[in-house]
Amino acid sequence: MQNPLSPHQLQRMDAYWRASNYLSVGQIYLRDNPLLEKPLERAHIKPRLLGHWGTTPGLNLLYVHLNRLIKQHDLNMLFMTGPGHGGPALLAQTYLEGSYTERYPAVERNRHGMARLFRQFSWPYGVPSHVAPETPGSIHEGGELGYSLAHAFGAAFDNPDLIVACVVGDGEAETGALAASWHSNKFLNPAHDGAVLPILHLNGFKIANPTLLSRITREELIDLFHGYGYEPWFVEGNDPLVVHQDLAGAFDRILASIRAIQEAARSGQSDARPRWPMLVLRTPKGWTGPDFVDGVQVEGTWRAHQVPLAQFDKPAHLAQLEAWMRSYKPEELFDDDGRLREEYAALAPTGHRRMGSNPHANGGELLKPLVMPHFREHAVDVPQPGAVEAEATRVLGTFLREVMRLNLSQRNFRLFGPDETASNRLDAVYEVSGKAWQAGFEAHDNHLSADGRVMEVLSEHLCEGWLEGYLLSGRHGVFSCYEAFIHIVDSMFNQHAKWLKVSRHIPWRAPVASLNYLLTSHVWRQDHNGFSHQDPGFIDIVANKKAEVVRIYLPPDANCLLSVADHCLRSRDYVNLIVAGKQPEWQWLDIDAAVMHCAAGASIWEWASNDDGDPDVVMVCAGDVPTLECLAAVTLLRGYLPDIRIRVVNVVDLMVLQPQSEHPHGLSDRDFDALFTSGKPVVFAFHGYPSLIHKLTYRRSCSDRIHVRGYKDEGTTTTPFDMVVLNNLDRYQLALDAIMRIPRFNKYVGHAIERYWSIMERHKLYISEHGEDMPEVRSWRWPAHGLAGKQAVEV
Amino acid sequence: MQNPLSPHQLQRMDAYWRASNYLSVGQIYLRDNPLLEKPLERAHIKPRLLGHWGTTPGLNLLYVHLNRLIKQHDLNMLFMTGPGHGGPALLAQTYLEGSYTERYPAVERNRHGMARLFRQFSWPYGVPSHVAPETPGSIHEGGELGYSLAHAFGAAFDNPDLIVACVVGDGEAETGALAASWHSNKFLNPAHDGAVLPILHLNGFKIANPTLLSRITREELIDLFHGYGYEPWFVEGNDPLVVHQDLAGAFDRILASIRAIQEAARSGQSDARPRWPMLVLRTPKGWTGPDFVDGVQVEGTWRAHQVPLAQFDKPAHLAQLEAWMRSYKPEELFDDDGRLREEYAALAPTGHRRMGSNPHANGGELLKPLVMPHFREHAVDVPQPGAVEAEATRVLGTFLREVMRLNLSQRNFRLFGPDETASNRLDAVYEVSGKAWQAGFEAHDNHLSADGRVMEVLSEHLCEGWLEGYLLSGRHGVFSCYEAFIHIVDSMFNQHAKWLKVSRHIPWRAPVASLNYLLTSHVWRQDHNGFSHQDPGFIDIVANKKAEVVRIYLPPDANCLLSVADHCLRSRDYVNLIVAGKQPEWQWLDIDAAVMHCAAGASIWEWASNDDGDPDVVMVCAGDVPTLECLAAVTLLRGYLPDIRIRVVNVVDLMVLQPQSEHPHGLSDRDFDALFTSGKPVVFAFHGYPSLIHKLTYRRSCSDRIHVRGYKDEGTTTTPFDMVVLNNLDRYQLALDAIMRIPRFNKYVGHAIERYWSIMERHKLYISEHGEDMPEVRSWRWPAHGLAGKQAVEV
Repeated sequence: MQNPLSPHQLQRMDAYWRASNYLSVGQIYLRDNPLLEKPLERAHIKPRLLGHWGTTPGLNLLYVHLNRLIKQHDLNMLFMTGPGHGGPALLAQTYLEGSYTERYPAVERNRHGMARLFRQFSWPYGVPSHVAPETPGSIHEGGELGYSLAHAFGAAFDNPDLIVACVVGDGEAETGALAASWHSNKFLNPAHDGAVLPILHLNGFKIANPTLLSRITREELIDLFHGYGYEPWFVEGNDPLVVHQDLAGAFDRILASIRAIQEAARSGQSDARPRWPMLVLRTPKGWTGPDFVDGVQVEGTWRAHQVPLAQFDKPAHLAQLEAWMRSYKPEELFDDDGRLREEYAALAPTGHRRMGSNPHANGGELLKPLVMPHFREHAVDVPQPGAVEAEATRVLGTFLREVMRLNLSQRNFRLFGPDETASNRLDAVYEVSGKAWQAGFEAHDNHLSADGRVMEVLSEHLCEGWLEGYLLSGRHGVFSCYEAFIHIVDSMFNQHAKWLKVSRHIPWRAPVASLNYLLTSHVWRQDHNGFSHQDPGFIDIVANKKAEVVRIYLPPDANCLLSVADHCLRSRDYVNLIVAGKQPEWQWLDIDAAVMHCAAGASIWEWASNDDGDPDVVMVCAGDVPTLECLAAVTLLRGYLPDIRIRVVNVVDLMVLQPQSEHPHGLSDRDFDALFTSGKPVVFAFHGYPSLIHKLTYRRSCSDRIHVRGYKDEGTTTTPFDMVVLNNLDRYQLALDAIMRIPRFNKYVGHAIERYWSIMERHKLYISEHGEDMPEVRSWRWPAHGLAGKQAVEV
Repeated sequence: MQNPLSPHQLQRMDAYWRASNYLSVGQIYLRDNPLLEKPLERAHIKPRLLGHWGTTPGLNLLYVHLNRLIKQHDLNMLFMTGPGHGGPALLAQTYLEGSYTERYPAVERNRHGMARLFRQFSWPYGVPSHVAPETPGSIHEGGELGYSLAHAFGAAFDNPDLIVACVVGDGEAETGALAASWHSNKFLNPAHDGAVLPILHLNGFKIANPTLLSRITREELIDLFHGYGYEPWFVEGNDPLVVHQDLAGAFDRILASIRAIQEAARSGQSDARPRWPMLVLRTPKGWTGPDFVDGVQVEGTWRAHQVPLAQFDKPAHLAQLEAWMRSYKPEELFDDDGRLREEYAALAPTGHRRMGSNPHANGGELLKPLVMPHFREHAVDVPQPGAVEAEATRVLGTFLREVMRLNLSQRNFRLFGPDETASNRLDAVYEVSGKAWQAGFEAHDNHLSADGRVMEVLSEHLCEGWLEGYLLSGRHGVFSCYEAFIHIVDSMFNQHAKWLKVSRHIPWRAPVASLNYLLTSHVWRQDHNGFSHQDPGFIDIVANKKAEVVRIYLPPDANCLLSVADHCLRSRDYVNLIVAGKQPEWQWLDIDAAVMHCAAGASIWEWASNDDGDPDVVMVCAGDVPTLECLAAVTLLRGYLPDIRIRVVNVVDLMVLQPQSEHPHGLSDRDFDALFTSGKPVVFAFHGYPSLIHKLTYRRSCSDRIHVRGYKDEGTTTTPFDMVVLNNLDRYQLALDAIMRIPRFNKYVGHAIERYWSIMERHKLYISEHGEDMPEVRSWRWPAHGLAGKQAVEV
């Protein structure tokens, strides 16, 4: 085959690559003498050597070659760095192409800037050694591995002109998330979406071991990727000049293949799922670095993973480092000023075509706000509290359907969920857009569509990863999930929250749409699934994160859910967690009241209270099922003790409980006391693990008066009411909790406990015999005439 | 090809299958009239219909055919139910073979027992609808999907005679964990381990969508599994009699292939990685169930997922259910007593060969205690507190090496970790056993071994899943992981903790070895990795679980780590979480003191205290880095305020902080106060998120006096000391915290704050300039002469 690169081009590209490798090594090692104008001394070397060399030359090689492709074809290309710990490469490349200096003018493109570039790397108050939010051109943090390919597909959706080159490390390729991500090609539409170009970098080793994919046979590797639906192109070698030619040729053919696929789809010639091309690049780990150190092989082994030379008390190491750096011939690459020579610099694309300046990697720049429907039009008519039933998420579904409809032409909103959109009762969205699907179709299929905007795959990792990529490239979305199984992506959430925390403080990072979780099919209604499907602990995971980034909402009914969802979809740079059930439940607030309640975050429900400003007890509820039980407890208490004075507070925004100093939504102590009083007993019915409430309120006045009921890992397959009974969150328990805490009713405690046990006995017998809840529980409802004043209630 | 089943055998196997399907439908629907001796009435039907029919007939089919194989070849076989929501199948099968009744004598093998079997299913206080710990023969819970294959490999390791038949649902196959699990075959040694027989059940649909693997081409599917290293056998169809013959033939050939592989490996003929056989079974979802319901196709679609007929106010549904159940011809299958007729019952294996009675599925029955080395022999010699430095995990590594050595012949101990055993400094184990590896070998490979017992793969999911399978089948292990990335398996941990919680209360479940996590490379020492590698929140996840199941240890030094590890390896039915750093740190306790301290869980460090029973402040620390900072703060305080009275308490077992009523390790209030006093200010330096301490202690006396410092999501790539500074956990801050809380030192607060700021300024300048910590910090050490009495300290 003819060499695609002319000798001149080859020489220049190799020089550019050498320059980037030189800068990478410089970052890892040097605090001074960046151009090696003086003989290298130990004083020029950083005292703490921290960084990853192994993957870096490969990343540099790919970047240089993709630059050629971009420039030659005027491509709109994003670079996704799976081996993100190869930070030196991305820093070197964005510095060479100029995008780094545009973001960080102090790191000038001259000897002084180069000195700063080197010194800042992995240095206190400098820059991380991994690809990070600080790195121009990145929407994918280095560190935890496995999410690059899902992020790449997320960025490619609805960006028909974009090509996302995604380098997948062969270590990363062993992770679960990545192993599942290859199948993302069954959800990408070649007509309306962009292309993802996966590049598996067979570097051969992880920190300490060979990689699986580098040690299976070539036949297995080809079969594997055929099986995943790709056509792999191989480039393998360790002679730079040969690899340059091979790689250039492979990229030319791959681009042609991508273009052919897109053309076939976009001209309507083909609606079959294409076999997308991918690249397998096999080059030595730590390529061009030290071959042997102290007589031990380093290049091409796991020993090249981090810092190949580190003992600079040995003069031989110092000499070896200098020889290594000089092997790139810096004097040929940089001019007297320390600037990359123009003949090489000209190889880089310009403006937004530079991968370090691609606006998709700073999605906020491209963000178009959603066209929002009027959520009030979806409101449930609630003539009075507890007068009607509704399925909250089904109501939300009609709202999301309109969000989908109004933004169809913008193509910037998608709904994500693991096979559960309908189960979570959001299926109204199908009226507007189907479920994305590029695998085979059959006669009975429903709502599957090659152009669908509802993303369903039985992998929480993919839902999360796609959505993160979609958001960070400037779009909007919602992820709905069974509450228990969202823990599958705890760690992805953690990393995204970290990304947001850091990027909020980077001036050039424009705000992106928030990551919105809707957790439904929640812990209290796992009637047929049981214990394995019960877990409200994701709230705790979220509550651990920086207050500036996270919001937690527990709307008690459908109208509150609408108000909260509307707010979340308009917000930026947050993670919003919404927990709301899907089962038919009584509705409490009309839409006006719901809006006011949600804006306040927590408020006294006057219509359920009769405390005249001086309650015996404050009954607090957060979450839909706890709200039901709390209100039922109120009716029990007022029937049993007509002169009891009860205040009912509902908390929809959990963060109001935190001190104002800890969270921007936190109530001032005065406002907190205005709701909860400064010393009256509080019985708190909470959706999640009770301890979270203690954790949020421990600094509040007399925090030990707050008695919390919530989930405590009890109950399995049983009736809905028995679930709350087993966890002591039921109305009878809450009523008892209240009576026990009011001194003037001490005399009733004995009797109340007796009644409690007799009810519980009846309850157990009833459900064991009938398999469903007692009629008095099933038929309970808030009294239609209301409960104003001190009026007694019959129960 | 000749039919492997004779007509008689075929007829009987089909009858057995029909019987199991009949029992499955009966469980989902009936509360009475189990044998349909009366015409079916609505009153016979449960009021709440909860269960999953779709996958059930396929599971029943496989079980019946595996029974034939077991019986014919006297196989030792375990059944792993990936589609675990198909609980009715496993309950039906274990009931038919008799193993169910042995565990639950009330569910007799007659009409009364059948009635109970039906009624208890998905009924309050009955049994879960998913495969669960209550299900005989299971070590894999239904519910959250994705872990079956990893569990299967875990069970197969070191069980050379065992075949683990693992049904993988095609929904489950979309998950990340499962997609990665196929590669487990590169870690299984055919000579010393058992076999895993993966059975991909192409049922076609999930809850609401087709499955990916059922909609890619046959060629892609074959390629995919070739790529994963398997030889797939296909059985496809919807005519039972044809499928029976095909399936029997396929299983015969698959077994022959497994035997050939094992023979070649065990006779030494071959040490190449074999291409293991697997089965792809494509049958309709809800096979043999209602074809159409209300004019809509059900069988073979997602509509068959749960309960195909549910509206029994429609007489047509009632009639259709009766016809469906009668289509299995129960009168032919069960005798007048309601017992499976002997000619069919004889098809099942007997005794422990029944998959419901296989002892590997009740691993505690097979559990051999580890032969334990004397951990004291690995102790660091600590002549006095702070006199020597050691790397705690490296010391532990020598102990684990001996555990490995002493149990080599038992083959019941393995060490798991994602490519980090050496990075976590446990590499001494390689002296005894290498890393399991069945992929290719190369010249420079180190410690890789086809027979290795250290399991390293860059997938936390696989490490966790393998270990769970290994433990539940009666063996022992430790999982070491970077602290931040253990969140990847939060959800797997949750499910395992749930399994333990339930199985502890099942009398026939014998206790299994605890799941031991060693989290190292922890939040405080991510010097070159930065923010993305910092997260101590797994402690919170664990603390949320049932107290009877979880234990959390924060050993402050190497000797405490040894004592804790020894204890954990001897324990049963817990999840033990140990967090310990790997960096060189000062050592505090000699081995005798360490043992006493760990047994107490928390104690006063008298050698660091001078309070004479009446402290001004209690300085508490939990975790190695917090301990260092706390002790450094003590030296500062005693230098600055010679008459200050300080008590130092170290907490190694975090659960002592909880009330005794909440956790078995919880201190009584009296004992708590004996350590922490009943009202003196407490400055608590904690390894993790501070709020956890508040959550654990909010019920203790004057809990608002407890001031906690810990991680608060600050800091990225910086020096070790700056990490604690940024999170306000540093010695200067702790000292200031103490002074501010002691009324008699109020007059010094202003000066102390001034000093604090001047030190901080110097610190920032120093690290920015030098890239490493100030000499006074690096050289700090506990005074060699000790700090007994009220002696002043120079700092």
